[in-house]
Amino acid sequence: MSYKYQKLDKNNAVLLLVDHQAGLSSLVRDIDPDKFKNNVLATASLGSYFELPTILTTSFEDGPNGPLWQEIKDIHPQAPYIARPGQINAWDNEEFVNAIKATGKKQLIIAGIVTEVCVEFPTLSALEEGFEVFIVTDASGTFNQITRDAAWSRMSHAGANLMSWFNVACELHRDWRNDVEGLGSLFAKYIPDYNNLMNSYFTLQNKK
Amino acid sequence: MSYKYQKLDKNNAVLLLVDHQAGLSSLVRDIDPDKFKNNVLATASLGSYFELPTILTTSFEDGPNGPLWQEIKDIHPQAPYIARPGQINAWDNEEFVNAIKATGKKQLIIAGIVTEVCVEFPTLSALEEGFEVFIVTDASGTFNQITRDAAWSRMSHAGANLMSWFNVACELHRDWRNDVEGLGSLFAKYIPDYNNLMNSYFTLQNKK
Amino acid sequence: MSYKYQKLDKNNAVLLLVDHQAGLSSLVRDIDPDKFKNNVLATASLGSYFELPTILTTSFEDGPNGPLWQEIKDIHPQAPYIARPGQINAWDNEEFVNAIKATGKKQLIIAGIVTEVCVEFPTLSALEEGFEVFIVTDASGTFNQITRDAAWSRMSHAGANLMSWFNVACELHRDWRNDVEGLGSLFAKYIPDYNNLMNSYFTLQNKK
Amino acid sequence: MSYKYQKLDKNNAVLLLVDHQAGLSSLVRDIDPDKFKNNVLATASLGSYFELPTILTTSFEDGPNGPLWQEIKDIHPQAPYIARPGQINAWDNEEFVNAIKATGKKQLIIAGIVTEVCVEFPTLSALEEGFEVFIVTDASGTFNQITRDAAWSRMSHAGANLMSWFNVACELHRDWRNDVEGLGSLFAKYIPDYNNLMNSYFTLQNKK
Amino acid sequence: MSYKYQKLDKNNAVLLLVDHQAGLSSLVRDIDPDKFKNNVLATASLGSYFELPTILTTSFEDGPNGPLWQEIKDIHPQAPYIARPGQINAWDNEEFVNAIKATGKKQLIIAGIVTEVCVEFPTLSALEEGFEVFIVTDASGTFNQITRDAAWSRMSHAGANLMSWFNVACELHRDWRNDVEGLGSLFAKYIPDYNNLMNSYFTLQNKK
Amino acid sequence: MSYKYQKLDKNNAVLLLVDHQAGLSSLVRDIDPDKFKNNVLATASLGSYFELPTILTTSFEDGPNGPLWQEIKDIHPQAPYIARPGQINAWDNEEFVNAIKATGKKQLIIAGIVTEVCVEFPTLSALEEGFEVFIVTDASGTFNQITRDAAWSRMSHAGANLMSWFNVACELHRDWRNDVEGLGSLFAKYIPDYNNLMNSYFTLQNKK
Amino acid sequence: MSYKYQKLDKNNAVLLLVDHQAGLSSLVRDIDPDKFKNNVLATASLGSYFELPTILTTSFEDGPNGPLWQEIKDIHPQAPYIARPGQINAWDNEEFVNAIKATGKKQLIIAGIVTEVCVEFPTLSALEEGFEVFIVTDASGTFNQITRDAAWSRMSHAGANLMSWFNVACELHRDWRNDVEGLGSLFAKYIPDYNNLMNSYFTLQNKK
Amino acid sequence: MSYKYQKLDKNNAVLLLVDHQAGLSSLVRDIDPDKFKNNVLATASLGSYFELPTILTTSFEDGPNGPLWQEIKDIHPQAPYIARPGQINAWDNEEFVNAIKATGKKQLIIAGIVTEVCVEFPTLSALEEGFEVFIVTDASGTFNQITRDAAWSRMSHAGANLMSWFNVACELHRDWRNDVEGLGSLFAKYIPDYNNLMNSYFTLQNKK
Repeated sequence: MSYKYQKLDKNNAVLLLVDHQAGLSSLVRDIDPDKFKNNVLATASLGSYFELPTILTTSFEDGPNGPLWQEIKDIHPQAPYIARPGQINAWDNEEFVNAIKATGKKQLIIAGIVTEVCVEFPTLSALEEGFEVFIVTDASGTFNQITRDAAWSRMSHAGANLMSWFNVACELHRDWRNDVEGLGSLFAKYIPDYNNLMNSYFTLQNKK
Repeated sequence: MSYKYQKLDKNNAVLLLVDHQAGLSSLVRDIDPDKFKNNVLATASLGSYFELPTILTTSFEDGPNGPLWQEIKDIHPQAPYIARPGQINAWDNEEFVNAIKATGKKQLIIAGIVTEVCVEFPTLSALEEGFEVFIVTDASGTFNQITRDAAWSRMSHAGANLMSWFNVACELHRDWRNDVEGLGSLFAKYIPDYNNLMNSYFTLQNKK
Repeated sequence: MSYKYQKLDKNNAVLLLVDHQAGLSSLVRDIDPDKFKNNVLATASLGSYFELPTILTTSFEDGPNGPLWQEIKDIHPQAPYIARPGQINAWDNEEFVNAIKATGKKQLIIAGIVTEVCVEFPTLSALEEGFEVFIVTDASGTFNQITRDAAWSRMSHAGANLMSWFNVACELHRDWRNDVEGLGSLFAKYIPDYNNLMNSYFTLQNKK
Repeated sequence: MSYKYQKLDKNNAVLLLVDHQAGLSSLVRDIDPDKFKNNVLATASLGSYFELPTILTTSFEDGPNGPLWQEIKDIHPQAPYIARPGQINAWDNEEFVNAIKATGKKQLIIAGIVTEVCVEFPTLSALEEGFEVFIVTDASGTFNQITRDAAWSRMSHAGANLMSWFNVACELHRDWRNDVEGLGSLFAKYIPDYNNLMNSYFTLQNKK
Repeated sequence: MSYKYQKLDKNNAVLLLVDHQAGLSSLVRDIDPDKFKNNVLATASLGSYFELPTILTTSFEDGPNGPLWQEIKDIHPQAPYIARPGQINAWDNEEFVNAIKATGKKQLIIAGIVTEVCVEFPTLSALEEGFEVFIVTDASGTFNQITRDAAWSRMSHAGANLMSWFNVACELHRDWRNDVEGLGSLFAKYIPDYNNLMNSYFTLQNKK
Repeated sequence: MSYKYQKLDKNNAVLLLVDHQAGLSSLVRDIDPDKFKNNVLATASLGSYFELPTILTTSFEDGPNGPLWQEIKDIHPQAPYIARPGQINAWDNEEFVNAIKATGKKQLIIAGIVTEVCVEFPTLSALEEGFEVFIVTDASGTFNQITRDAAWSRMSHAGANLMSWFNVACELHRDWRNDVEGLGSLFAKYIPDYNNLMNSYFTLQNKK
Repeated sequence: MSYKYQKLDKNNAVLLLVDHQAGLSSLVRDIDPDKFKNNVLATASLGSYFELPTILTTSFEDGPNGPLWQEIKDIHPQAPYIARPGQINAWDNEEFVNAIKATGKKQLIIAGIVTEVCVEFPTLSALEEGFEVFIVTDASGTFNQITRDAAWSRMSHAGANLMSWFNVACELHRDWRNDVEGLGSLFAKYIPDYNNLMNSYFTLQNKK
Repeated sequence: MSYKYQKLDKNNAVLLLVDHQAGLSSLVRDIDPDKFKNNVLATASLGSYFELPTILTTSFEDGPNGPLWQEIKDIHPQAPYIARPGQINAWDNEEFVNAIKATGKKQLIIAGIVTEVCVEFPTLSALEEGFEVFIVTDASGTFNQITRDAAWSRMSHAGANLMSWFNVACELHRDWRNDVEGLGSLFAKYIPDYNNLMNSYFTLQNKK
């Protein structure tokens, strides 16, 4: 049985950010809140950096679920923004699916809250329709490790690619020579260890 | 190889609660007892909320395994209740399988104690007979993480869907507009963070 | 250097519940939310069971911190309720301290959110004034284990007694013969393992 | 793709205990030594209880790897005992494979030290030859959780069934009515919680 | 401020085993049940090995708390056995304290269930009366790590010595030359790693 | 023995940031790098917010230890900055101690890398000279939890106050009415959960 | 569906060490640095011991990523060494792939930093081209357990074999009789427990 | 109550390495074996680097406890070496205490196996005699975290200083200018992260 590498292609990928809302965020307890915020903003930023079509959606944002994170709106002010009137699975919302199909892309990069619902449901629907799906696991959150592991199991057995935001960025970029400074800045902003490496390096370089 | 999304359908699903007995509960050590009790009652309640046919079964309840949790009986006073005379795999009990088949449903939602026996055995038997199986992982308990991971591996490789109770509830509900208040109450009762979100929200609403 | 056992005496103790508010609860991440809710309500209930003078206080409950948990108000509808206008340390609020002093008790049982502020500050102030202080550690919550450990260190070095709610209940009760059924019910309600023990026992008793 | 349940059958199963040697045991650090000893002896005992053909093998037992655990020899004094002269994969030892094939059984229950070598290698070899393989995960040990997870991944993807000793015992037994007392004694001996349940139960029974 | 080493002296020590009962054992979740059983029996056995006066006590053993572990009774068939009629703090039971005082010893070695009640309360009472107290931490159990840490904090600040059973045995023995074989057997029985060391060693010795 | 509450007073406190350098940061492994960066910048910012005299120092910043974090310099561009020529204990550097003494303050708030050296050594020296010392535990980092626990033990037994940055900010602020907006902004910037609470609240407020 | 055991063959395997560079090493936080260093050097050494063709590659070693570990160069001074000018996936570098193909081997043993990029990308590319791939999981490192688990999931679903360095060494060696002393020395050097076993054994042997 | 800083002075300190024997090492499970070996050798090496009088002692090294680690003997070939004939507490061995007193030093740096016996017992004895004691916590090992925490509690309450080997080295060295290269080499050898920092730095320096 031969293997086909589903490789992210920045010309064929859409970024979907699902339900990163202020209220729902308090449910996320499988990842530290500082790190989670960092990862979500890194993911939003890589959508912007690679100029991926990006689609935002929320669930009941006028109720307890609360508003979409302001920082995400700030990074993607022009993105299609679908406030779903009730559908739990974003794929059940026609406007959302149309926005995806309008891009003509076949690769979906998904992150959201909570993993086993807002990420998993559209993932399974999209896989059934033949899309390639890439989960940004560390920009998606849920109640605890049990619910996360269960969600990962169901999605990976269905054929989704489990990734991290750094993983996605590297697979999209392919070659540092496409742009060293831009990607370096993105990494320095969201990876403290990388930032430290760069600072030590350039400080020493400048002293020569 | 195309993927087929096994999607829970409230008109095609049965809830099976297997051996949540007072004595056996002391064996459950892969999940905190407060959380486990909460998850099991949430699962029993969603069966009631979605009006799923629900079947209860116990193993040797007159011996050390102890009685079924009273709270489960209270939620499902009319449910078929099969006190198995000895079969470890509930699927080996004709009365149990008949009760399932009598419903005409093809989707089984299963939770129980302990995961690698009372949940795993009927799961594997049902999968072999062509049922779709959905494990409520966080309403099932076992000795420790090693035994849980082994059980999950065997069940997921066999084709079972690993879920959480929240996951199951959302996939059954499909759209909040089917009933906002009812589902909201269920979540508020069993998810403290959600309860807090709702209380903050409605308190503030009422102040307008 | 001889040791003096500061032993809780139900006739000399006050219960202080500080800032268990809906919004602040989302900050609590050193203890699972199901367990935390359970422990806080158990603590509130033991105040009621032992008829301890109980004092409630909140911080900015009309703002993002949110309302006091409704369940606490329901258990203590008559308790003095001090909505502090701004003091972070409840001990800096004259009304709060007066309510304590009005009881004439010298033992303070404290729980709250977050541990290193709403519990620790009044604890240190009260110790300085000569009160005996008993922290309900598992009904108090904070950001993570680092902040908890630091708070515990400062409070225990100052002379506070680190307790759990079960610990407090047992030290107050002294002898089961004072009331078996009442205390048994309290434990059964908030300790699932204890509930299972009792159910197995009484089920078997009733079968004789 | 239909699923076939590989169900353990006590008339078709062999128990293989591989390299549970005194020296090698010091390498096992992914499971607590008290629990590991308990699980290994439980596994050896279930082989005896179900009268499974049992085969023992060791690696270099005269060197630093040390002697086979005396307790295992005591439980299986008559078992074929193959001290391998050098083969790391027991399946490369003709005498070992012949001993298995002489039983005519097609289901192999395997436990050993260390998981990713002494268990994994014969597992993969046996699967290739068409045997059904059942790993007693909690009676197998290795260096740490990384090495365990890697070994589990390779074995489960190859088609092995990941089990626990309790899991194996229950699947072999099928129905408590085959022998309540015998299996109950086995569980009471190796599961402290179960022992406590039984003691509470029978003590109370005897008081009637 | 000079330091005085409270050193265990086998001629001046009493062993107190408090409430190791079948039902209460299900509450113990801060230590693995296999290890806990092992440690408790090791502690009971060292009492016997060093011929320490040993006193057993239970709380409501005819109710849900259940009977004292049979293995403990078997090790100490002649020990004073005080079934307390209701006192939670064993020190409030005159018969218990009298049994201790009758020995004339001033060092108390205590283990029990649960740590913050059945161990902590008599510890604080005994310290107040001038006894030296030595907690067998790993033969005492409680609900979780929070309750354990709180109990340890209160006991250690009061002046109790936190020990392990191995620690106690070594401090009592002082010099291996007092009896190599006896202590070696005790360790081999309850410490699997030590057993392995001894087996490897003696196997090799015997081959010379 | 009466207790004296060492309470932080913004008019009597100095902030010392010791060796938060790019190279040394790679040694910090007892706390997640995202969280650590967040906590250190929060600590630096509270120094600025409360207008505390702040003193920066580094160790061998031209070598492998690397430059001080640029963000810290940006927050405190005017702070005394002592690049120590070799003293490991900053207190052995006369310029550093003089800078502290020049402020006339008696309360030292310290954070640094690594906890058991760069924080602990000046802490012990300052305590010996009669200063009150407050450790920002979550803005200090070290190799692992063993080294952290050892350092905390030594410092707390010496009389240091173990705090968190949030703890310090609240104790300095005393009363929200001193400035709601400023402190709220500080918390929203560095505590994602708090930010979410505020956003949900103000979004809803604005909708009235 | 029959299973084919992909068994490592020392005559058909190449070792690829990807980006074990001084700077990148600070990103590795899913494994302790002492253990990681040990595992990487063990992996490099087994390449040397089994005389596997070994290929080294680095990414931007003149920048912040830093130089390849000197110890690796020392073990493989003659190995092809490809300093990639920018390709993130080493498989996109023609020189690297040519070096592999020049060996004529079909089994690739890969370790690197970070797992989900430098290991995963060439793994997926090589699997697509029909190579057998063996991941040395414990000689590969990444940011945290979430990113590791995601990477392992993608690689194992693609058909890669997840191994440990000890696992690889044993599968390559097949039979201790091929060389007891050499392999024993390798294990003693990199496995402290094994070293202890050997020292105890030979010390005792020598005393005969 | 004024505080006196017990500051390590290389002219007043002795290093005691107690029972780091091959057999006993298998009992150490509260710290990873790779890291433990590294820390113990680092501790032995700092004794050599600072030319501290160093004393080695073992317990029953001809029996199962096994020989002292050869690497320690190699680092300290001339050190007094006391093979105790039976005393468990090394302080009960006159030769050992005499060797210490012969040095005239008053500061004892101790590491050993296991923490709660071989380290704790001589620590308490020495404190009673007025020595200052410094525990190298990360070069001492024991059965698990419970036994470690208990031992640390007893030793720290008695007045011992809990340290790490890095902590000890820095307090002894005082000022990098005493010898940059020597201490740097020691750190680079035993701290992989530090080694990486140095390599990156010097590689870049050399390129200028």
